[in-house]
Amino acid sequence: MLLKKLREEVLEANLELVKRGLVLYTFGNASGVDREQGLVVIKPSGVDYEKLKPEHMVVTDLEGKIVEGDYRPSSDLDTHTLLYREFAQIGAVVHTHSEFATSFAQTGRAIPALGTTHADYFYGPVPVTRPLSDAAIGGRYVHETGVAIVERFKGVDGVEPIDPLAVPACLVAGHAPFVWGADAHDAAHNAVVLEAVARMAFRTLLLEANPQVVTQALLDRHYFRKHGANATYGQTKEVC
Amino acid sequence: MLLKKLREEVLEANLELVKRGLVLYTFGNASGVDREQGLVVIKPSGVDYEKLKPEHMVVTDLEGKIVEGDYRPSSDLDTHTLLYREFAQIGAVVHTHSEFATSFAQTGRAIPALGTTHADYFYGPVPVTRPLSDAAIGGRYVHETGVAIVERFKGVDGVEPIDPLAVPACLVAGHAPFVWGADAHDAAHNAVVLEAVARMAFRTLLLEANPQVVTQALLDRHYFRKHGANATYGQTKEVC
Amino acid sequence: MLLKKLREEVLEANLELVKRGLVLYTFGNASGVDREQGLVVIKPSGVDYEKLKPEHMVVTDLEGKIVEGDYRPSSDLDTHTLLYREFAQIGAVVHTHSEFATSFAQTGRAIPALGTTHADYFYGPVPVTRPLSDAAIGGRYVHETGVAIVERFKGVDGVEPIDPLAVPACLVAGHAPFVWGADAHDAAHNAVVLEAVARMAFRTLLLEANPQVVTQALLDRHYFRKHGANATYGQTKEVC
Amino acid sequence: MLLKKLREEVLEANLELVKRGLVLYTFGNASGVDREQGLVVIKPSGVDYEKLKPEHMVVTDLEGKIVEGDYRPSSDLDTHTLLYREFAQIGAVVHTHSEFATSFAQTGRAIPALGTTHADYFYGPVPVTRPLSDAAIGGRYVHETGVAIVERFKGVDGVEPIDPLAVPACLVAGHAPFVWGADAHDAAHNAVVLEAVARMAFRTLLLEANPQVVTQALLDRHYFRKHGANATYGQTKEVC
Repeated sequence: MLLKKLREEVLEANLELVKRGLVLYTFGNASGVDREQGLVVIKPSGVDYEKLKPEHMVVTDLEGKIVEGDYRPSSDLDTHTLLYREFAQIGAVVHTHSEFATSFAQTGRAIPALGTTHADYFYGPVPVTRPLSDAAIGGRYVHETGVAIVERFKGVDGVEPIDPLAVPACLVAGHAPFVWGADAHDAAHNAVVLEAVARMAFRTLLLEANPQVVTQALLDRHYFRKHGANATYGQTKEVC
Repeated sequence: MLLKKLREEVLEANLELVKRGLVLYTFGNASGVDREQGLVVIKPSGVDYEKLKPEHMVVTDLEGKIVEGDYRPSSDLDTHTLLYREFAQIGAVVHTHSEFATSFAQTGRAIPALGTTHADYFYGPVPVTRPLSDAAIGGRYVHETGVAIVERFKGVDGVEPIDPLAVPACLVAGHAPFVWGADAHDAAHNAVVLEAVARMAFRTLLLEANPQVVTQALLDRHYFRKHGANATYGQTKEVC
Repeated sequence: MLLKKLREEVLEANLELVKRGLVLYTFGNASGVDREQGLVVIKPSGVDYEKLKPEHMVVTDLEGKIVEGDYRPSSDLDTHTLLYREFAQIGAVVHTHSEFATSFAQTGRAIPALGTTHADYFYGPVPVTRPLSDAAIGGRYVHETGVAIVERFKGVDGVEPIDPLAVPACLVAGHAPFVWGADAHDAAHNAVVLEAVARMAFRTLLLEANPQVVTQALLDRHYFRKHGANATYGQTKEVC
Repeated sequence: MLLKKLREEVLEANLELVKRGLVLYTFGNASGVDREQGLVVIKPSGVDYEKLKPEHMVVTDLEGKIVEGDYRPSSDLDTHTLLYREFAQIGAVVHTHSEFATSFAQTGRAIPALGTTHADYFYGPVPVTRPLSDAAIGGRYVHETGVAIVERFKGVDGVEPIDPLAVPACLVAGHAPFVWGADAHDAAHNAVVLEAVARMAFRTLLLEANPQVVTQALLDRHYFRKHGANATYGQTKEVC
């Protein structure tokens, strides 16, 4: 069996999404990539989480061609593989319909950076894609979903580009969030925090329609406290 | 004991509603129909869910006459049987007062199709009935509740008809949802998803009073991904 | 030990409030009355629910004088005893700070009857008291809280009276709900349903500022389906 | 090992925050102070709560210099120590990103005293700090967070001072709450109640944009029922 460790990490990330209440039934999927071998491990489509085992994971190449696996891969596979091809430094992708992030996606609005919890994880607003055209929806829809995400980060048509490592999530308009990270654990963690950030942004906006967003200084301070060479959060050695 | 398997399926559907947090105390009921024998199996009225066993289920004919059972059937029986008579292809009916769907019912408003989660299950808005007249309420009220649902789908008085298989749920104005499906498992599943969809629609509408609804192209793409001959979601064989 | 059975019922009602998420820490209390002996059984003040046993309950007379018990009674005792003296047919009283009902109390607004779930239990809006005067707050405050509830139901100053058996709950303005019932089980059940009804009214009002309230016909139909001589809900014999 | 009992109390307070749903992952921290020895016990930074043991706690002096411990202290240490130096009578500090209190912090607004639940614990609105200047954020940020809290209570620039014992919590604008108490148990308890009070204030404000705040008489009555020499709530002896 190929990629045993990655299969286990991807399974664990899928189960973390369930444990944290981000998925209902079989909605949602996580994948991881092995950059050296150019292989992706992804959850099979529509299988109950309680039955999932590492051997049910599906292995594909970066174009989505199945290399190993008895089951159909997640129906969102083509979005995952496009993100791996375009965002060269990410190691895992998570997709859920977590309810508050999805509610923002349904408004077609980004989640503004309204506090330090957001700034600890997302270095600026969590953006939303443009709506997909009818042609894109009628064509290679799942692939086109990835195209819309990538365009938003590359910043076509005068929109400012965003670094996918600094803002590891995107809302797909009318659909739901895609989230990524250095590895499967990190991507699932980011998806859980995104939902918490969305809950708090939702409540803040209901109390105050035009809240002040965090200043650049606060964004810098919090983001770089947890990221980069000068991070000061957490332990340099494991607690055991 | 008649219809042993159907009794078990109907019981399981009732318990799924409890497990997913859709019912408080004894609010809510599920039933299933055996089309060949023309018999309905339904939960008894006002019995604690933790005590329910297959033998407590009540068997009636399609007019609601009790054929087998020691207990009174659910007080909503006449709505269930009318739906079975009028919607010939459905196999099960679920009624709950799940809180977000009920909140929409209390506004007298349909749940608009605001995202792909909705489109995966409901091919258009989840409609709401007209308010019942005082005469209907004072008369065969439970039956009349079913009449209002059926009228909404048949589209009397210039209202556009809806296919009950494409939109397997209806809000009863000032009351709560009725949901159906191919079988008891499917109907309960639809009821759980309806509540999730209602939660997200509620939050979307609070953030944005006039959100864009999903386009016809997106509705088609998502609905037919999970339904019909060309469905691509899930496995063609069981994961075991 | 006096009133063993009533102590057990009152304890069970207190625990039901915890199980259903209506109380945080030691907020909330339930009591029951033995009309023949003129004795009240009430929860002690500020004791952790997990430690509560029947022998910790405090027995008082209808004036609140302690008859048996090693602990201080709930600090809300004087409200309970006044309700027993004034509402001759009630058998139990429950007080919680359940969050949605309390949010309505904090607005000083009644909970309007917006749907059939409400109508099944409360035959009209759940009213709110007038604010207490500074003199009442500075005087026999807990007693005066009861006075405000009783006045609201008796309908002083041209306000329409309400039958406490038909509407077994009242919001105390700026404070929280008091709920009652035929016995301790019934009062706790009503408190749990009140909170569900408040959650749905809250959401309905956020979606639609002026929703249509249930008609008199619907209120009659639902209320009398579960109450009075012609009730048709539930079983005439126990399911065992 | 120094301060064994205080380590256990601080650990227990940290776990209470998890049990009550106030923290996600490792967000949040609690500390306690030994005034005689001038030593602070605080949670280590970024360690999973399920692994925490008393020996992982870090002991520092009141300036934040580590006296005993193998791990890095919470990254919020400098806020804790400043509060201990400035608020001489407090015995413990808790910091969480509990979601409703944080949503208020993100609006830059205080939590108004809208009901008796609030008045039982907080003798007036729970205040919010001024936004930190860019210089403060770029400098000794964690220390400056404490400075902003202390200034709000001391009442610089014509703002009315607040007694930190009477209002044992403060929202840091754009960030989250800090809460304190007589000891670690008390501080965690106050943090849990603050979140409940924030949930109810949020819902009250959505129903009614300008609700009446509790009167001074009601604030006095409720606050002094639970605090001070004339408190009447709870037991004078332990229930066992």
